[in-house]
Amino acid sequence: MDLSAEQITQLNANPLYATIGIELHEAAAGCARSTLTPQAQVCWPSAGQPHGGILFTVIDTTMAFAVMSLAEAGRGCATVDCSIQYPAPARQGPFHCQATTTHRAGRTVFIRAEIRDASGTAVALGQASFRIIEAKPTARAA
Amino acid sequence: MDLSAEQITQLNANPLYATIGIELHEAAAGCARSTLTPQAQVCWPSAGQPHGGILFTVIDTTMAFAVMSLAEAGRGCATVDCSIQYPAPARQGPFHCQATTTHRAGRTVFIRAEIRDASGTAVALGQASFRIIEAKPTARAA
Amino acid sequence: MDLSAEQITQLNANPLYATIGIELHEAAAGCARSTLTPQAQVCWPSAGQPHGGILFTVIDTTMAFAVMSLAEAGRGCATVDCSIQYPAPARQGPFHCQATTTHRAGRTVFIRAEIRDASGTAVALGQASFRIIEAKPTARAA
Amino acid sequence: MDLSAEQITQLNANPLYATIGIELHEAAAGCARSTLTPQAQVCWPSAGQPHGGILFTVIDTTMAFAVMSLAEAGRGCATVDCSIQYPAPARQGPFHCQATTTHRAGRTVFIRAEIRDASGTAVALGQASFRIIEAKPTARAA
Repeated sequence: MDLSAEQITQLNANPLYATIGIELHEAAAGCARSTLTPQAQVCWPSAGQPHGGILFTVIDTTMAFAVMSLAEAGRGCATVDCSIQYPAPARQGPFHCQATTTHRAGRTVFIRAEIRDASGTAVALGQASFRIIEAKPTARAA
Repeated sequence: MDLSAEQITQLNANPLYATIGIELHEAAAGCARSTLTPQAQVCWPSAGQPHGGILFTVIDTTMAFAVMSLAEAGRGCATVDCSIQYPAPARQGPFHCQATTTHRAGRTVFIRAEIRDASGTAVALGQASFRIIEAKPTARAA
Repeated sequence: MDLSAEQITQLNANPLYATIGIELHEAAAGCARSTLTPQAQVCWPSAGQPHGGILFTVIDTTMAFAVMSLAEAGRGCATVDCSIQYPAPARQGPFHCQATTTHRAGRTVFIRAEIRDASGTAVALGQASFRIIEAKPTARAA
Repeated sequence: MDLSAEQITQLNANPLYATIGIELHEAAAGCARSTLTPQAQVCWPSAGQPHGGILFTVIDTTMAFAVMSLAEAGRGCATVDCSIQYPAPARQGPFHCQATTTHRAGRTVFIRAEIRDASGTAVALGQASFRIIEAKPTARAA
């Protein structure tokens, strides 16, 4: 189900996003968009540049909500695997992430995402598969 | 060059590691080991479970120091790409990461890593290629 | 350098393409297109369906010529790594492959490709990095 | 179910293996081994060196039979995705492939494989996820 504006607002208050500097904008019809305005503590070892793992986190979570927009109410999702490339250094934020589902086969969802810097240069490109799962309080998801 | 105990101690004081809960133990001869004791703010959306992007960050940074142990003094390194799999939920920390170089071809280094939970179950498996680069104050590295 | 029509004709006569059923159509400006009309011997274990490794081969070789179109005369290229996804069974050929460079950083080229069946469904999606290398008679390339 | 010696002999007669030069030796308990003695027609563009797509095919099919050894009788399997790295040129055959399951989660199987040349150098390293599926005459599998 597409995320409502209210759900997105609520979601954006989570501690992980606050720590990193992530804001989700939209998750609908298998696509999602977010922005990374990196917090200082995740810009290491190069000041002003988010760590590559932080860029991955943005891609993974943005993909997850794109997948959730395809799932029935009450379901969760889990990353099966994800490949990421770093074509250029991530120097000029804010960084914009777009995730786009390429195919759904049953509960498996194939998805791509990219992060571009303020000048439009791609700084991270991802390709992943997710599984839509039963949501459990203890499930690994998103 | 292998990292000295002093270098590792100094390194472990960085803000990213403190925020996430990473401690590097060793980086020598193309291998490195670290532990993740996840901070509460990176355990989301499931309480007690580090986000998949955090596991990726542990793998990426542990690999990076394994690669640095192969590089000449004064060099840096950059992740070209990395594939990660999540075979099982990451429920029981602390989590132990081991990175092992599989091959070096000039300045390109091929490397694998895995994270195991306290019971020994693999919760993340990664395979990456890195480039050893000239270190610059603004370089994207580690 | 872009491949000329004559170069492409000559190239298409190679034994690997004949054995598999690959035809390259174009390689220019970092992009390339090809078609797979799979030979019976590579349709196994399911009659009429090319093996997943054959789809990978189409993606890898089409990417390679897209990369070659960016390289200076006399150079070669080598796949560093490639991730492939199989979103749907490859049942209805001929299959069309499109490779598109996403970024070039020095001698490293980042590239994506997809194969679609006759109805337009994506049956394979790839993401790779290549290195442009000195061409040597013994080089691993294309 | 583990493959019997008779099943393996029968399997090795398939047209794809004959065209490429693959021989499967063993598939039991989530692991499998094979050898590639590359046929001339798949050694292109460098004479004597199997194309990277051929190395991928060896990895993919060897992994598939490792997965099949874990599946109940009558099931099939399908590659969801696979990442491959090429650390060194594949010059000295025959090439030996070993696939090893890292984890099974329900019908999803995580697996790694490597191909080594006659001197023991790794020439291809793969990491994949497979799904165990209902076997159908038209299924994309192996």
